[in-house]
Amino acid sequence: MRTYLDCIPCLMNQALRAARLATDNEEIIKTIMDEVGLMIKDIPMENPPPKTALRVYRIVAELTGNPDPCRDLKNHHTRKVLELYPTLKEKVSRSTDRLLAGIRLAIAGNVIDFGINYSLNIEKDIDRILKQDLVVSDYDQFRECLTVADEILYIGDNAGESVLDRILIEELNKPVRYIVRSAPIINDVTHTDAVQAGLDKVATLMASGTDAPGTVMEICSPEFREMFYRSKLVISKGQGNFEALSETSAPVFFLLIAKCPIVARDIGVDVGDMILKAPSA
Amino acid sequence: MRTYLDCIPCLMNQALRAARLATDNEEIIKTIMDEVGLMIKDIPMENPPPKTALRVYRIVAELTGNPDPCRDLKNHHTRKVLELYPTLKEKVSRSTDRLLAGIRLAIAGNVIDFGINYSLNIEKDIDRILKQDLVVSDYDQFRECLTVADEILYIGDNAGESVLDRILIEELNKPVRYIVRSAPIINDVTHTDAVQAGLDKVATLMASGTDAPGTVMEICSPEFREMFYRSKLVISKGQGNFEALSETSAPVFFLLIAKCPIVARDIGVDVGDMILKAPSA
Repeated sequence: MRTYLDCIPCLMNQALRAARLATDNEEIIKTIMDEVGLMIKDIPMENPPPKTALRVYRIVAELTGNPDPCRDLKNHHTRKVLELYPTLKEKVSRSTDRLLAGIRLAIAGNVIDFGINYSLNIEKDIDRILKQDLVVSDYDQFRECLTVADEILYIGDNAGESVLDRILIEELNKPVRYIVRSAPIINDVTHTDAVQAGLDKVATLMASGTDAPGTVMEICSPEFREMFYRSKLVISKGQGNFEALSETSAPVFFLLIAKCPIVARDIGVDVGDMILKAPSA
Repeated sequence: MRTYLDCIPCLMNQALRAARLATDNEEIIKTIMDEVGLMIKDIPMENPPPKTALRVYRIVAELTGNPDPCRDLKNHHTRKVLELYPTLKEKVSRSTDRLLAGIRLAIAGNVIDFGINYSLNIEKDIDRILKQDLVVSDYDQFRECLTVADEILYIGDNAGESVLDRILIEELNKPVRYIVRSAPIINDVTHTDAVQAGLDKVATLMASGTDAPGTVMEICSPEFREMFYRSKLVISKGQGNFEALSETSAPVFFLLIAKCPIVARDIGVDVGDMILKAPSA
């Protein structure tokens, strides 16, 4: 997905929220806003938004000297969802269609995002989301691809949400390579977070080679790119990965909640909708 | 009121909305966003936001060559509210406290703002707002000031809303000088709009000397400033004028709906609340 004009004020908002999480110093935050402002003229509108977002979050990290402001939040989210793990696992086990239940749960987990006070409502939010139908549901196509795939590439999104990725992975009954960000960025899942969530017990962990908040192929590692392009089935979680991969020709299924009006419009749904989307090609 | 960090992404959003109203050309809009981005580093945080907003809207006007993108919208709003005038005037006339009814109506009119498709709901929105109580109500103090004032300075805000200012002015029973912006800015009331609303029949019209979307004293005309500082009662409509005048020592009563979280927090109310606020001093 390209960058839209609406993404520009949104990037400023993201900068402000991230900066506030990293520091209380108003002057430093103003300097961050100045720097992000100066950067706007250099945003190529044909780039996917996560590529620009990476620059924004690097500015925040450099100017605050805090490369991982979401560390505590991520630990907290992972711990919280691990507490829910037995109940949710049991719920999936009792389902008539366990695979679909796992998919729905993994999408619902995408509700966990970078937000102040967000952690308070994880259980309630997951419950609420699970009451919704999938607005885009390419489940039959997904099952077909799953049958022919020897191995699945599963691109994670946020820490905490990753615990629910684990539940879905346990229902796939195929070898899975779980892809994490190479370095901390917002609350995205890194190697450390994936291990905390127990994903190393059900999948091989691998870093994408980038710390952009979305899998922007041209800045991923050659190893990851090679693996990506020979995959028969890729699962892409969340909005950042959708923005980065929506135009790929690879067999990527997108599992996400549409969180902003721009992505929602791009997919043709409403904000808040649950999506299981087949590759466009 | 000073500029808060949250005002920065908001200014970017305002730039985008204004630019879209002025042109369909995406490249020109991107250039506007670039220019506003470059300007962020020069925003003095001690300035009231309307002073900065003036620069944003000037960039939009210069780069689109359209100094009055809200012209049609303003005509439409004024016409719409003029249609409601007889009914609303009658409603005030039947009230047990006509002055209070006029004040409430003038505040409710502040719901009319620069927004796409907004005009469709004016009647409904005014009705909805009029069901609310005044959350801050310094009505007794207002009545006292009204008794001693020989003449009232009434600072208008938006076109359309100004028709309801006229209804309040008709209840004040004192000479009124109605202050308009000196040149078009967003949907703020100018001399042309005030005449369309019939304000010239009930008040002396006067320009503030600035086209900032708020009465920023240091860029108003000396004539206006002199008049302002010797007034016994000033009525200030809307958020932009509040932002510009909230720290003045003059006897200014603020009639507004709190429209953004920053102004709401500054006053100590919630977004959407109706305010009749006495001078702080």
